[in-house]
Amino acid sequence: MGVEQLPRTIDIDENGAFVTIVDQTKLPEELVIRKMTTIDEMIDAIKELAVRGAPALGVAGAAGLALFAVNECHEQTLEAFMQQVMFAEMRIATARPTAVNLSWGAARALYAIREALKDDPFDNDADRIEAVKTALVGEACRLRDEDEASCRAIGAVGAEFLPEHSRVLTHCNAGSLACAFYGTALGVIYAADEQGKIERVYADETRPVGQGARLTAWELARAGVPVTLICDDMAASVMQRGMVDAVVVGADRICANGDVVNKIGTYGVAVLAAQHGIPFYVAAPTSTIDLNTAKGEDVTIEERSHDELGFAEIEGVDTINPAFDVTPAKLVSRIFTENGAFTSADIAQAKA
Amino acid sequence: MGVEQLPRTIDIDENGAFVTIVDQTKLPEELVIRKMTTIDEMIDAIKELAVRGAPALGVAGAAGLALFAVNECHEQTLEAFMQQVMFAEMRIATARPTAVNLSWGAARALYAIREALKDDPFDNDADRIEAVKTALVGEACRLRDEDEASCRAIGAVGAEFLPEHSRVLTHCNAGSLACAFYGTALGVIYAADEQGKIERVYADETRPVGQGARLTAWELARAGVPVTLICDDMAASVMQRGMVDAVVVGADRICANGDVVNKIGTYGVAVLAAQHGIPFYVAAPTSTIDLNTAKGEDVTIEERSHDELGFAEIEGVDTINPAFDVTPAKLVSRIFTENGAFTSADIAQAKA
Repeated sequence: MGVEQLPRTIDIDENGAFVTIVDQTKLPEELVIRKMTTIDEMIDAIKELAVRGAPALGVAGAAGLALFAVNECHEQTLEAFMQQVMFAEMRIATARPTAVNLSWGAARALYAIREALKDDPFDNDADRIEAVKTALVGEACRLRDEDEASCRAIGAVGAEFLPEHSRVLTHCNAGSLACAFYGTALGVIYAADEQGKIERVYADETRPVGQGARLTAWELARAGVPVTLICDDMAASVMQRGMVDAVVVGADRICANGDVVNKIGTYGVAVLAAQHGIPFYVAAPTSTIDLNTAKGEDVTIEERSHDELGFAEIEGVDTINPAFDVTPAKLVSRIFTENGAFTSADIAQAKA
Repeated sequence: MGVEQLPRTIDIDENGAFVTIVDQTKLPEELVIRKMTTIDEMIDAIKELAVRGAPALGVAGAAGLALFAVNECHEQTLEAFMQQVMFAEMRIATARPTAVNLSWGAARALYAIREALKDDPFDNDADRIEAVKTALVGEACRLRDEDEASCRAIGAVGAEFLPEHSRVLTHCNAGSLACAFYGTALGVIYAADEQGKIERVYADETRPVGQGARLTAWELARAGVPVTLICDDMAASVMQRGMVDAVVVGADRICANGDVVNKIGTYGVAVLAAQHGIPFYVAAPTSTIDLNTAKGEDVTIEERSHDELGFAEIEGVDTINPAFDVTPAKLVSRIFTENGAFTSADIAQAKA
């Protein structure tokens, strides 16, 4: 039992010959590990949402580029090799339009190439190309390891805030499946569970896509954490009946004033938590804190395809599908990061 | 356009030869009017939820009994005839375990028989049996007409509270489809719409069963009321963005202290409305007010089948499916009834 029962969401062969991912389109029905050797397989996986979650996408961007360099690019000169790598980087970085971490991971990989070639200690292009390959594989592995270390640090920070016998409610999936391994919001739960402090987790279904029903419920159960899956509109009643001690969610972006942009439905949970005197915690790496965005209102909320809603077509009925909402800083009790727990006042101070 | 575009949810032939219902298992894909001539067809329709909603079930109970008396019971003596009618009444009254209105409607029909036979102005059993049949058909029609009149009165009361250009959010289906015709919460909207005061209605999907997605969205669109269907976890964001002027919902039971028992999710909407300074209105006939139940906590919340949730089966994942929740009186701005608009203080006073 425990978090170690979970598969690695994304993993990289040490020679860069292949990458494996947990195919999240197959969960919860089947645990399928998809092994890939080309960048196109990775781009397809990203587009299909077989791999998703900001931290996991960062690793996926770098790992896909490593696959291309090691397995697919046969140019003999450094110039031709790098032209192909740069073009491949552009392709994978734009595989999903709004996934900042994806292009960030790919950009980190390019930067690692520059570092490797710095001062040019090589005799010939063949050696230089080998160094590029090694740098890309090394950077992908480093991103993977950094992500896990960051999650474990976030978990340790957050677990301190959870009391014994905690009953925790979460929304969406900020879990191991959204990261290389371990998770942010669920990382806090795994860390607290290792300390014997988790009595039960309530997982919101999280309509319209159902990340809670498909992913969070699955990974918590597999890790041996007692979990109850509820419809989103049951959360209020569960809190009213005194069944929740804390809420822990992830974040897609944290603004300079401490406003939290996260999966649609998060804001409603925060209001309910405040109403019931339940602490509302956000768990995210510091890279999520965007000091260049002053406040939540400044963020454009992505409107996703209405097909995703799964509603029966009715003539004359409109629908909306905002992917995110904004939780005002004042409703957030603490933000857990790998560098410690902060209040929104702390973050505003960091900006100043 | 307008509410008159809606089909009668349940209607009764004036001779009791047949009853028609809108088959709600077929909505929103198809509008199917199911015509029935026997009590067993009605019992099946009730069990399948082809007809649902407390007020509609009251009419269905009486109408089913009328069908039995008119079309199926061939006894020649009053005693034998009534034995069969009484047994039929028991069968239809228990077709759904917790539907109070169903047994209430059937009981009202039995009472109508007693009234018809009072003082026995008849010469023979054949005439008495005819009088029983006439009484049953008459009572079913009366329940239908009373329900519609009550809904229209509730609508008129509630519409006064909605401002011009109202954007109203509702949860579940307290609509024409839950009544003989017109609706309670949606009755308020239809009445306000007739006054040109409705700009838009936001209909919560209402998981797990989706009455909002399947029924409310359908009937509002058909009546020409602009409607936007949203997932339950989007309601908070819609309110935050200033898109809602009022919430109107129905009620399954209103306690003596003004606590409102209604579809799961209602309580959360009430908390969100209060947080955003949006009035939260409940529309229900006075028959819904149960002065014998002191407060919401005293009500046992029905736990329904977990199959209804539609979640993928995951080993080790628990689920819950409470059908209702309790909205405390203090969150309810007004209760609209056919006799006027009340505060919870008014209701508490009625008890005293």
